[in-house]
Amino acid sequence: MTEQVTPADIRAAAARISDTVVRTPLLPFGPAEPGRPLWIKPESLQPTAAFKLRGAYNKIKQSLPEARERGIVAHSSGNHARSVAWLAQRLGLRAVIVMPDTAPPNKVDVVRELGAEVVLVPPALRDTHGFVLAEQHGYLPVPPFDDPAVVAGQGTVGLEIMEDLPDADVVLVPVSGGGLAAGVATAVKALRPRTRVVGVEPELAADAEQSLREGRRLAWEPEQTYRTVADGLRTHGLGQVPWEQIRRHLDEIVTVSEEQILDAVRRLALDARLVSEPSGAVTFAAYLAGDTTGKHVAILSGGSVNPALLARVLTEPAREEALHEH
Amino acid sequence: MTEQVTPADIRAAAARISDTVVRTPLLPFGPAEPGRPLWIKPESLQPTAAFKLRGAYNKIKQSLPEARERGIVAHSSGNHARSVAWLAQRLGLRAVIVMPDTAPPNKVDVVRELGAEVVLVPPALRDTHGFVLAEQHGYLPVPPFDDPAVVAGQGTVGLEIMEDLPDADVVLVPVSGGGLAAGVATAVKALRPRTRVVGVEPELAADAEQSLREGRRLAWEPEQTYRTVADGLRTHGLGQVPWEQIRRHLDEIVTVSEEQILDAVRRLALDARLVSEPSGAVTFAAYLAGDTTGKHVAILSGGSVNPALLARVLTEPAREEALHEH
Repeated sequence: MTEQVTPADIRAAAARISDTVVRTPLLPFGPAEPGRPLWIKPESLQPTAAFKLRGAYNKIKQSLPEARERGIVAHSSGNHARSVAWLAQRLGLRAVIVMPDTAPPNKVDVVRELGAEVVLVPPALRDTHGFVLAEQHGYLPVPPFDDPAVVAGQGTVGLEIMEDLPDADVVLVPVSGGGLAAGVATAVKALRPRTRVVGVEPELAADAEQSLREGRRLAWEPEQTYRTVADGLRTHGLGQVPWEQIRRHLDEIVTVSEEQILDAVRRLALDARLVSEPSGAVTFAAYLAGDTTGKHVAILSGGSVNPALLARVLTEPAREEALHEH
Repeated sequence: MTEQVTPADIRAAAARISDTVVRTPLLPFGPAEPGRPLWIKPESLQPTAAFKLRGAYNKIKQSLPEARERGIVAHSSGNHARSVAWLAQRLGLRAVIVMPDTAPPNKVDVVRELGAEVVLVPPALRDTHGFVLAEQHGYLPVPPFDDPAVVAGQGTVGLEIMEDLPDADVVLVPVSGGGLAAGVATAVKALRPRTRVVGVEPELAADAEQSLREGRRLAWEPEQTYRTVADGLRTHGLGQVPWEQIRRHLDEIVTVSEEQILDAVRRLALDARLVSEPSGAVTFAAYLAGDTTGKHVAILSGGSVNPALLARVLTEPAREEALHEH
């Protein structure tokens, strides 16, 4: 199969979305380890709390007359939903959002407040019901990851990283449906093939790690992936479009434990002043757990954290921090 | 008295410090109120957690050979100390930091870990003891605010705001010793005189508000200002250099309550994904409490928050949030 997303597509996306998407900076991480400096790319600072704004906007803006006439439909565990609803409100589009009935209430509320219609379905139906509604009502689907325009939009994160740090050695990117990982790997490898692009998954939702290792796209069941606290990474398999890019361009995928993820959320808040959701913190967790050398970039993909969870990790410090503070 | 800080000084500072200071973005605030869009300038994302890096680096870099030979001394309630210690470590300078013995332990520890020598003194002595040590040992003083080079460095925040949003209508800036407010007001008014520059203080440490209102520089006693949770704004009076700029260029100073400050810390974390310390959140509090129209910018000056305080505000939501979430 030929590649469906080219570096030229990603550059075109960057120009298309620049009127709305925040050009996030690379933030040098103060207490980085010797020989392995780290920069954080805080996509949590997008107005919709996550990188998802990039892909959704690239997709919608490419088909704006159609979207205006027909309305749009999306399915999502949260951040894609919020981005689509936010764009629909700004652009004056009708939006229907299909969400799993297990989604955190704060993420559902945010979408409703933006004026979108929310349809809650069991997790097993969330990836298909949007297409059913699109068929029935004529809505334009805005997929969360399995679409070339969406992958190209997410790839703009990779372009910006290489603009700001052209000699980055390792770029760490979260993997769920694969849109961000596919776009970033495609962009980075086109600009500097020897930069390593490393995907990160929770141990409890490591379907992409297994897929890449075995060389075949496979899925984990929702009953498995729903165990991780990283609710944005529970998608039960890579999309076909992302998979084609990932198997060509991503160097490897590593996994992190639940404890490592929660510790990363805590340290990002206190050491980098960044609020992250668990899914957004997996790359920083992988940096802390790893031993690769050179210039690292960790993509912090989103910040829609449950307030109680954030409060809990702040008051349950890891062992060394407890020793340090008292 | 002639002005000691000119727009040209601020432009020169911007060029001088650009190799080390993060060019922070203006972040559009998602749930802004109709007719009063808001952008946040997150200086909490500097590697030392606050804007203080700008002024301290501008001062040190101007006198680098002298600083290398003599060592440097600074006094600070926290963020200036951390910035000076961090710069000293990077530049290989000896640094002595005078801190009040009431400073939060997390701020003191951070300074010690950066390799600086910490001298703790009663709050009443903190503004003078550094100069005593400078006299005794020959150290170069790096004042926290009452110095033209420091004010010029802080003014680069104002330059960047006007570069990114040239038609800003209201710029909100925290006021303590006045370095940031003086620099920002000088920069903004030089570029666009009709942009309003508004200082913000806690009601419990409103010495600058009283000074500007009465047209004379006056101080509040530490016993008064130490009541506010905004520990970075407890300085008991404006510096002479900042005062000269502030009385010419700052339009007004408004005050916020302790409750408004803590609510602002909470909302910045959840609605903007930014960890702020109470002193850094006063401008956002003033935006929420105010009714001015037009394009607003709130400078979030720092993010060295006590983890227990942040956890507490996250789990003690304000009334309307409690209604909303349950």
